[in-house]
Amino acid sequence: MDYTNKLTAFLKKAFAKAGFTKAVVALSGGVDSATSCTLVVRALGRENVYPILLPYGQLNHQGVVDARAVIEKLEIPEANVSEIDIKPLIDPMLALDPAIDNIRKGNTMARMRMIVLFDQAKKRNALVVGTENRSEHLLGYFTRFGDEASDIEPLRNLYKTQVYQLATYLGLPQQILTKKPTAGLWEGQTDEGEFGFTYKEADQILAMLFDEKKSVEEVVAQGFSRETVKKVQARVAANSFKHNLPLIPQ
Amino acid sequence: MDYTNKLTAFLKKAFAKAGFTKAVVALSGGVDSATSCTLVVRALGRENVYPILLPYGQLNHQGVVDARAVIEKLEIPEANVSEIDIKPLIDPMLALDPAIDNIRKGNTMARMRMIVLFDQAKKRNALVVGTENRSEHLLGYFTRFGDEASDIEPLRNLYKTQVYQLATYLGLPQQILTKKPTAGLWEGQTDEGEFGFTYKEADQILAMLFDEKKSVEEVVAQGFSRETVKKVQARVAANSFKHNLPLIPQ
Repeated sequence: MDYTNKLTAFLKKAFAKAGFTKAVVALSGGVDSATSCTLVVRALGRENVYPILLPYGQLNHQGVVDARAVIEKLEIPEANVSEIDIKPLIDPMLALDPAIDNIRKGNTMARMRMIVLFDQAKKRNALVVGTENRSEHLLGYFTRFGDEASDIEPLRNLYKTQVYQLATYLGLPQQILTKKPTAGLWEGQTDEGEFGFTYKEADQILAMLFDEKKSVEEVVAQGFSRETVKKVQARVAANSFKHNLPLIPQ
Repeated sequence: MDYTNKLTAFLKKAFAKAGFTKAVVALSGGVDSATSCTLVVRALGRENVYPILLPYGQLNHQGVVDARAVIEKLEIPEANVSEIDIKPLIDPMLALDPAIDNIRKGNTMARMRMIVLFDQAKKRNALVVGTENRSEHLLGYFTRFGDEASDIEPLRNLYKTQVYQLATYLGLPQQILTKKPTAGLWEGQTDEGEFGFTYKEADQILAMLFDEKKSVEEVVAQGFSRETVKKVQARVAANSFKHNLPLIPQ
């Protein structure tokens, strides 16, 4: 697939220009990080890729199993793999406020992972490969200074459904291709459950609104329920502040 | 001073537009955070400002003393003040790698403060007021996703020496105005010691290079040593990557 070559070439060129030969990638067991990791292995060679697994205790243990399957598939040397439980790092912070809610807990987890990831990159003189896709970016479905923090973002222009297509083309393990997307921030959490719409719906609607600059009426006329279009639009609007900060005087 | 009114008006307007009435500020005991805090008290009222003190154990204890002097001067209600020792939060992370160096330790400390600060802001439905000045910004003297992370940056257009002028005008405590700038990341650390030049030199050189677009030769012709100009320029160049990430495919 031409696009794979394009992304691999982008990674090769960008790493060379930045003066780095190594990459760290946080592998969650999800399709985005598995795909990013696969691309970076193609670009830099498996011996230069350092997968970091960052589970919170036994929460989302399946993520670790699936991440290991990706590492095995890519034949990344075991010496390159780090598995660091963030529970002992996070729990002292969570203990500061027994009233902390799931959103704050999720933000804290995403940011603690960022700290470990960037520290590992510094230690290894490597760049942090991000895993954000265009759907998450437009929907604002990320934690500022958390999962969005990275040095290089190969998937940023691909919608989630396109990431699945690429992952299928790249031959990623079946369990990665069929699992429900989750940020893994609490038990049973799924992205689509939180959204109230599917990525398949969101991606088509986002593409019409943002790439084709269609109006809500025009999207509805394409056969999408007005309620769903409004929901997608509302989420984009509610999170657009994330792209516009910090505020700075003229 | 006209500029004080301008910044206060900027803060008032930006908070109103963003739909927030409260602010959290990390007070380090340094001149930048003391000045930011003073401006935001003027803009929002002392009862809406939440100073957060984030010492690492007894390291830089003077910072806490000086931050307390600012809080007292501004008559911020004690109920608004949080003091959270980040040592118990950091030490489990530092323990992961006994070979961790001062740079990695400093980055981790700055980022751990970011986590606490943004969590406190979320808890209080407040914005995080940043304290970055133009000198630090141009020199790249900050930790990405650490001390640079904020929602609003009142001082971003002021060089460090201008922040001192503003702080003097605002009548900040004498101890704030006379202490040597330090990131407080290790005992005895000073910004100027790390740079190998003073802020007074840097600010004049940066203004000539970036605002007046002068060449190195022209700056040297103004009476600055070539070595110092080169040092300033080298630091800007070495850290410019911080402003240009993440890398994203076309």
